Amino acid sequence: MQAVLMIYADNAATTPLDTEALSAMREFLAEYYANPSQPYSYSRKAKHALNESRARIAQCINARPDEIFFTSGGSESDNQAVKCSGRRAIITSAIEHKAVLESCYAMRNYYGHEIHELPVDEACRVIIPALAEALTHCHSPALVSVMLANNETGVIQPIHELAQIAHSHGALFHTDAVQALGHVPVDVQALGVDMLSGSAHKFNGPRGVGFLYVRRGVEIRPLIHGGSQECGLRAGTENTAGVVGMSIALTNNCREISRHEERLLILERILIDGLKGCGIDFRLNGDAAERLPGLLSLSFRGANGERILHRLDLKDICISTGSACDGMKNQISRVITRMNVPHEYAGGTIRISFGKCNTPDDAAKIAREIANVIPTQ
Amino acid sequence: MQAVLMIYADNAATTPLDTEALSAMREFLAEYYANPSQPYSYSRKAKHALNESRARIAQCINARPDEIFFTSGGSESDNQAVKCSGRRAIITSAIEHKAVLESCYAMRNYYGHEIHELPVDEACRVIIPALAEALTHCHSPALVSVMLANNETGVIQPIHELAQIAHSHGALFHTDAVQALGHVPVDVQALGVDMLSGSAHKFNGPRGVGFLYVRRGVEIRPLIHGGSQECGLRAGTENTAGVVGMSIALTNNCREISRHEERLLILERILIDGLKGCGIDFRLNGDAAERLPGLLSLSFRGANGERILHRLDLKDICISTGSACDGMKNQISRVITRMNVPHEYAGGTIRISFGKCNTPDDAAKIAREIANVIPTQ
Repeated sequence: MQAVLMIYADNAATTPLDTEALSAMREFLAEYYANPSQPYSYSRKAKHALNESRARIAQCINARPDEIFFTSGGSESDNQAVKCSGRRAIITSAIEHKAVLESCYAMRNYYGHEIHELPVDEACRVIIPALAEALTHCHSPALVSVMLANNETGVIQPIHELAQIAHSHGALFHTDAVQALGHVPVDVQALGVDMLSGSAHKFNGPRGVGFLYVRRGVEIRPLIHGGSQECGLRAGTENTAGVVGMSIALTNNCREISRHEERLLILERILIDGLKGCGIDFRLNGDAAERLPGLLSLSFRGANGERILHRLDLKDICISTGSACDGMKNQISRVITRMNVPHEYAGGTIRISFGKCNTPDDAAKIAREIANVIPTQ
Repeated sequence: MQAVLMIYADNAATTPLDTEALSAMREFLAEYYANPSQPYSYSRKAKHALNESRARIAQCINARPDEIFFTSGGSESDNQAVKCSGRRAIITSAIEHKAVLESCYAMRNYYGHEIHELPVDEACRVIIPALAEALTHCHSPALVSVMLANNETGVIQPIHELAQIAHSHGALFHTDAVQALGHVPVDVQALGVDMLSGSAHKFNGPRGVGFLYVRRGVEIRPLIHGGSQECGLRAGTENTAGVVGMSIALTNNCREISRHEERLLILERILIDGLKGCGIDFRLNGDAAERLPGLLSLSFRGANGERILHRLDLKDICISTGSACDGMKNQISRVITRMNVPHEYAGGTIRISFGKCNTPDDAAKIAREIANVIPTQ
């Protein structure tokens, strides 16, 4: 019941499962359960479904099917990219997801890897010249890992430029595209990246499945050793249902990216205009143009983000104060801090992320309910 | 259609999904998709389901809920246990699953860890005195990893005795219980293990989810770094549907272990008697008493295992020649080799693994069809 009345505006944390993806998954959950690695006929349908899914995902990002390796999600993909490239110097950015940052710190703490963090400007964009500078300081061949779009502000990073600089210094380039995939066009050739992480549940696919794109010719080790699944790059009996659901969800999302973006920009406009109309003092964090559609980081002067979240929750509206992966921590987020959001605003930060299911009425209601919490000035 | 007529006797590779587990999963796939780490009301049902699932699994193995950590499956659990205990000497056995063995080799090749392999006898049981001997040769505190039941022969290992020896030398003890869980009673206290791996799809749960039991007080690092999920021991948005399905499947299997075992032993008897009745020369590999019910490794004199598999496949019967994780390799398996199965039998090895859905007719039919392939002597 709750699910019906509720306004879910936290699509950056996770998304509802695409209905077509769910219905395709059912068949593999209930009927074609065979282990795709077994050599009898009954496993062929599962094996075929894995291959089809690989091809579908490859097509969505302009890759080859043999460059797509299935994992258990974005965190695993990021961990493998960061930890298993064989590079002992890693350059990353101050605003990466914790799956990348904590992987870097682990490699430094356990194995003595050299870690550099690129700064961001006030628009939440990685400062491009800082990369060449960092590369000249590396004591061994480097891996550069910078996300395609930030998960708290939605700001899209200059990946093409950064990858070019990385390559001109002999570095490998990985991008965590978890937040961006299925929401803006992603083309691995145009970006020029060597590795790219994706997570199904961020683009209306199921939880517990993701992939890592590894450009042909790039050598990487397994993170999870064992059986020879995924060409020996990722052991474990294949999650056929999950992989099928992921590939259908991504295909469906990619097919509708433009139409979806248009709709989301209307919702953004209704929300922003609604807040402005109430005379509320707030700022939109991060670059206003180069952003994921529908993802808004808003800071309200003198307010408390957690209080806004809880007041909206009482009205059955789901929003967020920051990344879900930071759990219940009641602090100003690392991203907001690194962007130098003015202190009087920083504490009053919330993230609203619209998705497929939101309506103009939702956006208008969220604006009204925020206005009820934030006193006008 | 195929699924209905078919006889599936490869339950050691993967099992059909428990119908109650599937129906519980649907709710979390379709409706309660909230990210359990978010602090609004809508996520409470997902959070509650995770906690309930943790308690259910703990109860099945006589552990505490806070000792259960969800992972993406058995391979991940094994990798974490082997790679992340901080122990630089690892003693394992010659018949472990590749998720354990390859993890050991990776730690040796990349980080110089010391690896010892315990031999097995002809009954496929780890030779107990070899452990104390190996422990005295370790140059640093050790981790011992020995599986609870072998995945090719079903032979149950003397874990309690081995764990006692390990502990008396200050070593940690991990057991890969992937093949055993849900098929024989598993009690972490009685076994005396520090860590234990489980995989849902081996006990009629879904693919892509598993768990690692870590005894309270045992320190282990994450394999997948990032968010603070699973008390910081395993990052990644929680796969609520998968975890719920796993916990229900394990509970259902554990509740019926005795009844199920009785049924499986009847199927074994029908199969063995059927083969004997046809005058076929074969051997049952591994200890005849201490075995998982329903899992039979059979070697036929002068025969070819792959040929048997394919002939049965033509009759819509699914069996295996060895572990699914070894993929399509057409060789005599490591386990069969280490047990010293006589050469004239070894090449004719198949694995038949009965499960919940098999009937006495299935067992009789499999015996008849094998008799059609193997010439009597």
